[in-house]
This record gives sequence, structure tokens and C-alpha cells, in this order.
Amino acid sequence: MNILESINSPEDLKKLGPKELKKLCGEIREYLITCCSKNPGHLGASLGTVELTVALHYVYDTPKDKLIWDVGHQAYTHKILTGRREAFLQNRKYKGISGFPKMSESEYDAFGTGHSSTSISSALGMDIAARLKNSGEHVVAIIGDGAMTGGMAFEGLNNAGSLKSDILVILNDNGISIDKNLSALHNYFVKTATSKSYNNLKNRIWNHLGAGRLRSLFQKISLSTKIAIFKKGTLFEALGFRYFGSIDGHNLEQLVITLRNLKDIKGPKLLHVVTKKGKGYKAAEDEPTTWHAPGTFDSKTGKRIKSVSGKSKYQDVFGETLLELARMNEKIVGITPAMPTGCSMNIMMREIPQRVFDVGIAEQHAVTFSAGLAANGMLPVCNIYSSFMQRAYDSVIHDVATQNLKAVFCLDRAGLVGEDGATHHGVFDMACFRPVPNIAIAAPMNEIELRNMFYSATLEKNPTTIIRYPRQEGQGLDWRKPFEEIEYGKGIKVCDGKDLSILTIGTAGNYAAEAIRKVRDSAPEASIAHYNMRFLKPIDTSILDEVCEKFHTAITIEDGCLKGGLYGEVSEYVASRNPDLRIIPFGIPDRFIEQGTIKELTAECGYDPDSIAKAILDLIR
Amino acid sequence: MNILESINSPEDLKKLGPKELKKLCGEIREYLITCCSKNPGHLGASLGTVELTVALHYVYDTPKDKLIWDVGHQAYTHKILTGRREAFLQNRKYKGISGFPKMSESEYDAFGTGHSSTSISSALGMDIAARLKNSGEHVVAIIGDGAMTGGMAFEGLNNAGSLKSDILVILNDNGISIDKNLSALHNYFVKTATSKSYNNLKNRIWNHLGAGRLRSLFQKISLSTKIAIFKKGTLFEALGFRYFGSIDGHNLEQLVITLRNLKDIKGPKLLHVVTKKGKGYKAAEDEPTTWHAPGTFDSKTGKRIKSVSGKSKYQDVFGETLLELARMNEKIVGITPAMPTGCSMNIMMREIPQRVFDVGIAEQHAVTFSAGLAANGMLPVCNIYSSFMQRAYDSVIHDVATQNLKAVFCLDRAGLVGEDGATHHGVFDMACFRPVPNIAIAAPMNEIELRNMFYSATLEKNPTTIIRYPRQEGQGLDWRKPFEEIEYGKGIKVCDGKDLSILTIGTAGNYAAEAIRKVRDSAPEASIAHYNMRFLKPIDTSILDEVCEKFHTAITIEDGCLKGGLYGEVSEYVASRNPDLRIIPFGIPDRFIEQGTIKELTAECGYDPDSIAKAILDLIR
Repeated sequence: MNILESINSPEDLKKLGPKELKKLCGEIREYLITCCSKNPGHLGASLGTVELTVALHYVYDTPKDKLIWDVGHQAYTHKILTGRREAFLQNRKYKGISGFPKMSESEYDAFGTGHSSTSISSALGMDIAARLKNSGEHVVAIIGDGAMTGGMAFEGLNNAGSLKSDILVILNDNGISIDKNLSALHNYFVKTATSKSYNNLKNRIWNHLGAGRLRSLFQKISLSTKIAIFKKGTLFEALGFRYFGSIDGHNLEQLVITLRNLKDIKGPKLLHVVTKKGKGYKAAEDEPTTWHAPGTFDSKTGKRIKSVSGKSKYQDVFGETLLELARMNEKIVGITPAMPTGCSMNIMMREIPQRVFDVGIAEQHAVTFSAGLAANGMLPVCNIYSSFMQRAYDSVIHDVATQNLKAVFCLDRAGLVGEDGATHHGVFDMACFRPVPNIAIAAPMNEIELRNMFYSATLEKNPTTIIRYPRQEGQGLDWRKPFEEIEYGKGIKVCDGKDLSILTIGTAGNYAAEAIRKVRDSAPEASIAHYNMRFLKPIDTSILDEVCEKFHTAITIEDGCLKGGLYGEVSEYVASRNPDLRIIPFGIPDRFIEQGTIKELTAECGYDPDSIAKAILDLIR
Repeated sequence: MNILESINSPEDLKKLGPKELKKLCGEIREYLITCCSKNPGHLGASLGTVELTVALHYVYDTPKDKLIWDVGHQAYTHKILTGRREAFLQNRKYKGISGFPKMSESEYDAFGTGHSSTSISSALGMDIAARLKNSGEHVVAIIGDGAMTGGMAFEGLNNAGSLKSDILVILNDNGISIDKNLSALHNYFVKTATSKSYNNLKNRIWNHLGAGRLRSLFQKISLSTKIAIFKKGTLFEALGFRYFGSIDGHNLEQLVITLRNLKDIKGPKLLHVVTKKGKGYKAAEDEPTTWHAPGTFDSKTGKRIKSVSGKSKYQDVFGETLLELARMNEKIVGITPAMPTGCSMNIMMREIPQRVFDVGIAEQHAVTFSAGLAANGMLPVCNIYSSFMQRAYDSVIHDVATQNLKAVFCLDRAGLVGEDGATHHGVFDMACFRPVPNIAIAAPMNEIELRNMFYSATLEKNPTTIIRYPRQEGQGLDWRKPFEEIEYGKGIKVCDGKDLSILTIGTAGNYAAEAIRKVRDSAPEASIAHYNMRFLKPIDTSILDEVCEKFHTAITIEDGCLKGGLYGEVSEYVASRNPDLRIIPFGIPDRFIEQGTIKELTAECGYDPDSIAKAILDLIR
């Protein structure tokens, strides 16, 4: 650590010579590996963009010029170079810096990018603003080949082409999004990256033909028929972009020269850069999916430090159960937008690959493709992270719900997700889907409920169901048991009581249970009822009627936004009846919650077991 | 009307010879024009697809084979040919047939398509289902060039290419979506449609070279360098599709021959068909935007019958006000996803074209592009129809709200829209955006409020605002007056009262006012308070406190879903305080509402003035 310590802004970078820059890249890589080994993060993507980031800040005049890092986890080097080297030690930590670019964190973060495929559209907006202001700012979007499959990237390219904007789009092609990139686009990129260039081809023919009649004939034909030799990048050229590349994304000199040349070329340009995910760290190069976000590891040996809780994650309950259900029911088809490993659909994929579809980063398509499968007799099980499902809101409404098609949507990463922060918390799902007709919404309190809800959702008699569950480990229950049907629209009484009732949905029920234990510790006489609602929709009105009748105070607890979710449903039911009942909500308040551990964040929001227990004690005393 | 009368299903079609088929097309066109002149509909698109529809049903074995009509308003001929000739007289009418394909209406409607760009994804789902079932069904998606700009179409193409599905995508290229298609993609289609074909080119060179040494040299070069002559459709071929065309979409014979040839070619195929929007009706051919959905007209003269109410539409209040605001504020930029005429942004476009951006059918991009403009110093005013805004739900959350960027989103066509039916009613906007932090939600009761809300939303001190307003005409007020600022989070008392209070948001306030008049007619002693909340968020808590204190019964009325909207917000506020207050909600119940007039539909939902008046009388007696 030598040069890196002297870099406090891109200005410092610009003072370095070629050799120092190269050395700096090595130092950055070492720093990334050391930091991420102790403080987990998205290591793989950022190792792949070290040279590219150095070259961009070296050539461009940031922050006046704008760099937009699509799916920001490729931007660690960018953070380190822009005054956040020390802060990076607190990457993704509570009150630390975000794992993604964030406008409020640094003037160098031109645009926040937690979700995929937003960079071209936002870059285009900035470029058009620069044009209207006549400010001469350059705008660069850096987008991975995985993110390029998202429809919005295409919408952005198409519009940028027609507006003749001056943006530079850098395609960071590492052949992988999180899991292996299986799209047609990917095949195209590979072909493009490995093919010889247009001009080379043309020259070769030219030379072969020799001087004289043949050449002029060739020329004549070329002109008269508008013949063009197969050009690389025609896909982008069809959309009005000039295509450059491909070039080696780890060759710093070539990157600097190319970017300098491109800087003042007008019109929309795409530079195809080939990089290696995990570059410079062998373990990460060899297994890019595992090392996308590896958790803590021994930086010397590359050995990952695994948690030894012995508890299953909810995603694994989903994955194993899916395989079992698919074995029993031939109609079941699995659909995931680029998250087979993250949601554990890879378990079914290994055994029944012909019935699992990884459609790439394309949430809208994932849902409408599922609707098509359903319309033609299949039973699609589509797993999408809760915050990414926001992308497919209309697809669920328009393509599934209005047509009353039958599918199962499993929303992993629902509720607070922890270190990924504001863009990734799955807090809006219950509120936004509750008003949509023809759909049931369920959330399990533990592994067994998830398994049985999932099973029940596949039964023909039940409607399309959204099942939401969190990122965490489960309760450590022995859940590998025979299926039991769960009755739709029915909750269960976890414990009875007289003083006050608690209504919960999903794993927040465990916070309630723990809070009740804590309350009993300090007030053994306390008599608290707890209802696990299981379904937000249809809600169990018999429970609500019982609560209205027996209690004067009820608490709702949910791992989701307070507006419109469980609290909303219960309030609406109660308001139209006017019992003598006050309802006190616990959940996520009306602001964006940043990163941190679940414990830190639930405490901040006031619905961790301690806060709930304290509130209950205040209420019953 | 002769042959057409004998066609009750595609079976009947298959009995006809080439001459009769041609005559049938003429009859269909006449029938379309006659019907639509009296009973308004989407005439233009359907006139363009007469021959294509006849050819498809002639060649394919529907309903076993699946036809999916993207943005279903090109599907009138399909409806007429599939047993709904008579029913078409009730097209878009209450209890009549839908203006879009609808699965529940006919087995020939393979998939419902009200929103754009869904056909390829759903077709792919059906095709994969057919593969898994080994049913041998053919699946065809017919998609306009306008719909092709929607990101989901690209997601679908990309996935279809990688899955090597057998779908046929027909690109119905008429150079226009609703307004003129300005996308880069469109330019590409034009170039492709007018260029000579690959094989022709190759043959020409071949012939020019003559036999002998030159030819073998050419062959050698071709092979050794993998040279390919410029091919049409490379964009689609990059995505794994085989490209065919372009062919004349009004040449029935060529269509039939081509479709027959394509029917049994394996793998993903795209057929480029060039059609003319409004084909066969001169007025519609000349002015395709006007005749997209012309309203009633004189079929002989082509003269459109205009309404003479003299009232401004809400969209025109928006459009004229936008121009005024943009003249005053250089930062204001207008953004519309393909609806400049529909939302009246064309008014600003005519005077300040450099600051208006029609980005094509691409709602996600429209919002994120707006966010980019905002991040670089502009004030974007983005107008999107309410139900289409569902597409951009994540873009509003992730790209605007989390970053607290300042924009104005105007949601035209909010609430029930009438004849376009279930897919177009803008009923979820208030419920789905209410939980999103950093955003205000407003809805005007009349033209003057819309104008002043819009003005106030552009003031620097106010947050990003969603303003929703309906498709209809306004109240006939003289609204062209100096701007007045509207205080955020403040409602107004329309009238005072003692027996009962009514809380309304948006134009539903007019239903309340009319209901109060009706109540007074039959119960002059009735004393009803009416609060126009103006803002759903931030809600006016001083009004809610007053209502909690003074009343035992309150009514909420909203032109939106009952779950999670105004009723949700009021219930949540009240439930946490437990006053002696019962709240009775009026709005859209938890099911999809079909097409009809606003009057018919509000009556069905029970929130037309009559129903409200009746309910009030029951409550106060």
C-alpha cells in the first residue's frame, strides 16, 4: 500500500505515470480482497473493473463528467478512488457507506444504481440536460452484459440512438451476470468479441482482389448494391450507435488510449470491453457465481468462512420443496430472472433442467412468460426478489391477475434485507399487491409454514398466490416433513391472552413471540394474545372479529411498510365497524431505510423484539 | 355484405377460394368502418391488419394454434372472424365485448393484450408449454413497430432466441404507434424494409464475378473470413431469430404463401410485414394519429363528429398549462412515452420542441430518463397514463424516490376510463404509490385545481408530486386564470355540516357535491360536511382530527381501488386513535371492472351520485 494511500481524489490519479497506474491497479485489487475478506461485499464484479475504473477517472474530468455504474456493485474501485478509501472499511455497514453508488454520499456518484439496467436511461437524461445547459459534460454509462438483457437498457439504447445523444455506453462483458449469462444476447456478444473487425475483413478482400479490373468491380458492386461486409456491433448500429471494440478490459494502456479517442467523438457510442469477473484472485476467477458475493473468507487461502448455524435458509426450503413438488406435478415449471443460485432454484435445475427457465435479468418478461405458460396449461412457479418484483408490477396485474391465470410467485428477500440497503429492502410488496384482485398474499412465520404454503399454493383449488419470505435463515425447525395443506384465508392463534392482542404476518411473528417472552419475564401477569395471520389476503376476518370483540388494543407487526400492508388491511376492516379498539402499528416507517444488519435496522424502525416488548409493557401498565 | 355473413368461425374461412378471400377483406373493411363510425373504437390499427388476420386464420389451425395480438386494438378483424361479428356491434360497450382480446371472451383469444409489448413473452410461454406437452401447437405473436420499442418485447426476443423456441413473431410495421414512431428502431425498420435482400445481393456479386478463378476466390474469401453480405434483420439475428421479409401486408396471396412456408420452419422466426394504418379509408390513411381512435364519424364523408360541450378536457388543461410553465421556467422538460397527442403534450411540442421528448412506448425509460434529467439540473414533467405507470413502478421508487430527485408526474386517465375497460382503468395508482417515501400525491377536483396543483408542483420547495386526473372533460370552469399556489398537505372544506362528513380526493369530489344536492332535495334538513382533501399524501391531518372530533360517521369517496387508497390512509390514521367514528368507503371494489360508460361503471361500483345520495339518506335517517 503505497500509491493508493496517496489517492484521495481522481485529481491525484491524474498525476501518475503509466507504470504507477499499473502498480496502483495491483494495490487496489489487494485492498479490495483484504477488505472484502473481512467485511463481505460484491467482490467479483469489482475485481473485474479495476483497470476500467482507473482509466475512466484518468481520462474523464469527474465529477463534472458523469460516470454511471449499472448495478453499482461493480463500483468499489470507483468509491475507493473518489475519497472513500477509508470509508470503504465500513462498506455496507450500518451508518457506513452504501455498497452501491449513491448520490447523497458523493458528488462522484452521478446516479444511484442498486437495481439493474437503469444506467443508459439515466445517462441519456443527464446527457440531454448537458445539451440543454450547454455545459459540455461527458456522460458515460458502464453496463454489464447481464444487465444489458433488462428491457429498460434496450429502451434507453433505442431512445439514445434516435436523439443522437453523445453518451458513451461501455459494455462490460464478463459473460456472466450473477449466474451464467444464458441469453441470446450473450451469444451475440461472444461472437462479436471474437470476430475479426469490419475493416480487417474489407482490407483482406481488397488485397486478395489485387489491383485493376477486379477491384473496381468489387468497388462498383459494393457501392451499387450498398453491400457492407459483416460488421461487428450491428445490433447496436441498428439502434443508432457506433460500435467500438472489443478491447481487453484489463489492458490499462489500451483502455486509456481508446477512451481518449472516444471522448470527443459525437453521437451515441458503444465500447465493448471484455473483462474477467474476479480478475486477479484465482478462486474468484474459477467460480464467479460463488464469488459474486462470497461472504467472509481467508484472503490467503481463498477459503470461505461458512456459517455453522445448522439452520436452513428460507431460500433452501423453497428450492428443495420446489423440486419435490415438481417431481409430483408435471405441470410445474420454474422461472427465475437470473437468480437460480440466489433463490435456490438451481436445486430443481440440476434434476429437471428442461422445466426450469433462467430468463436473465428481465423481471417483466419472467412474469409474462409465466402467464403464457399458465395460459397454455402449465403451473409456473416464478421466484423474484421482492424489490425486483417492483419491475413486474404491471405484468402481474395485466398479464396474470386480470386474466385470472394461475401461478405461484415466490418473493425471496422480502422485508429488510440488511447490508444491501435501501434499494434492496423488499418493503412495498404487501402494500402494492394487496389492492390487486384475484391474488392471494401469504407470508410464512417459519420454514414449515413456507413449505406448506407453497404446497397449498400449487393446489388447483387455490388462486394465484404471492408468498413472501425473508433473506435470512429460518427458525431452525425440522421442516422436511410430509406436506400439510394450509387453509386459505385462515390465520392461527399462537397464544391466547386478555390484555392486548398482537396480529402478525410472516417472520415478524417471531419478533412478537420473543417480545411476549420478554414481557412475561418482567411482567409475569401479562396476558397477551398473538395471532399469526398467515394471509394478508384474503385476511382472516374471524380473527379480526374476535379481536374487535375481545380487545381494546391491538398491535400489528409486519416486516414491510406501514402504509397499506397488514396495518392497512386491519385498519380498513376495523374502521368500517367502529369497535372500541385502538390499533398500534409496528413495521417500516415512511422513509427509505439504509444498510445495516437486520438487528440494527429493525431496532431503528422500532419493531425488533426489545422495542415491541417495551411498547407492550407501556401499553398494559 | 355477403361472404362475411357466412363466416361464423375460421372453419368457414378455410372453405373460400383466393378471389372470395379478397372480396371478404373488402367486406370486413366496410363493416369495420360502418361499425366504428357509429360505435367508436380503434379503427386505424384494425384497418391495417385485415389481410394479415384473414391470412393467419386461413393458414393456421386456430384456436389450437395460438395468435397473440400485441396491443389488442389491431384485433377487430380477428374478433369478427371468430364468432363475434354480431357481438362487434357492442364493441367496447357495457356488457358488450371488450375492445381487446380477452381470454374469457373467446377460446380464439389466446391471451389478453390491452397494454403494449407483452405478446412475445406470452407467446414464448405458450410455445414452451406446447413443447413440454408435445402438443404441436403453433404460436404466433403479432406486434406493431410501436410496441416493439417496449423493453419487454426485447426481453422476450432475447429469451426466445436463447431457448430456440418455435414461435413466429410478425412485425406489423406501419411506421406509427399512436403518434409517429420516432425511435431509432423505426429508422432501422425503414432501412431494412427498403433494402434489397441478402440473397439477391449475394447472387448479384456471384453473377458479376463470372465463372472461374474470381468466383472461387470470392468463395474462398467468403469462407475463410466468414464474410457475410449485409443482411437484413441482423438486429433480430443477433438475438437468435431468423428474419424474413419485408413483405406487403396487404397482399393476401403473398401473405398466405409466406405463412404456409414459415409454418413448419423450426426455431424462432420473425416476419416483417409492412402495412398501412387506416388502409382502405382515405381519411384514416392521411391522418393516422387522428384516426387511431377517431370517435364517431360520418362514414361517407369521413367527417368526425365532435362533441360540442365547450368544456375543456383535463388533458388540455395539463397541456396548455405545461406550455405556460415551460415558458416561465427554462428547466422544465416534457417527457411522454408515445402519447404526445393523448396527453396534449403536443401543445408544448409545437412551440418548444427541443424541450419535449417522446421516448416511444417505454414507460420505465420515460421515468428513469426523467430521473437523469433531474439529477443534472432539469425539472422533468413526465406524463404517463395511470395504468401504464404500473410499468414504471420500480423506476419511480428506485430512480426517483430513493434519490429524492425532483420531478412532476402527471397521471392522465386515472380512475375509471370507460370503454377501454379492465386493462386501462387507472385504479391502483393511489394505493401503490402511497407507501413510497419522498413523494406527494395530489388529485384535483376541477380544472382550476389541476392547473394550480401543477403550478405548485413545479415550485422548488415542493417535493416530487404525482398528480392524477381522469380522462374526462372538466367541470366547465373558466380556468385560464393567473396561477395560485396550493399549499401542500392541505385540503379544503367544500361545505360544512353536522350529521355526517364526506372526505373526497380528486374529481370524485364532484360526485359528492352532486350527491349532497340530491340529498338536500329529499331531506332539506340534512347537514352534510364535505372536505376535498386535494392531497392523498401528505394527508391533511387537521381535517382528519376535525372529523374524528365532530362526527360519528364519515364517508370516503375516491375514483380508485378501495384497498390502500384514500380509505386506507384515513382508516390507518383513525385506527391508531380510536375515536367513535365509523368510516364508510366508496370507490372501486376488489375486482376488475370491465368496459362501459363512466356513468354505467360508477353505478356498478356504487359511487355514482345516486348511489352515494341513497347511502347518505340511509345513514342519516
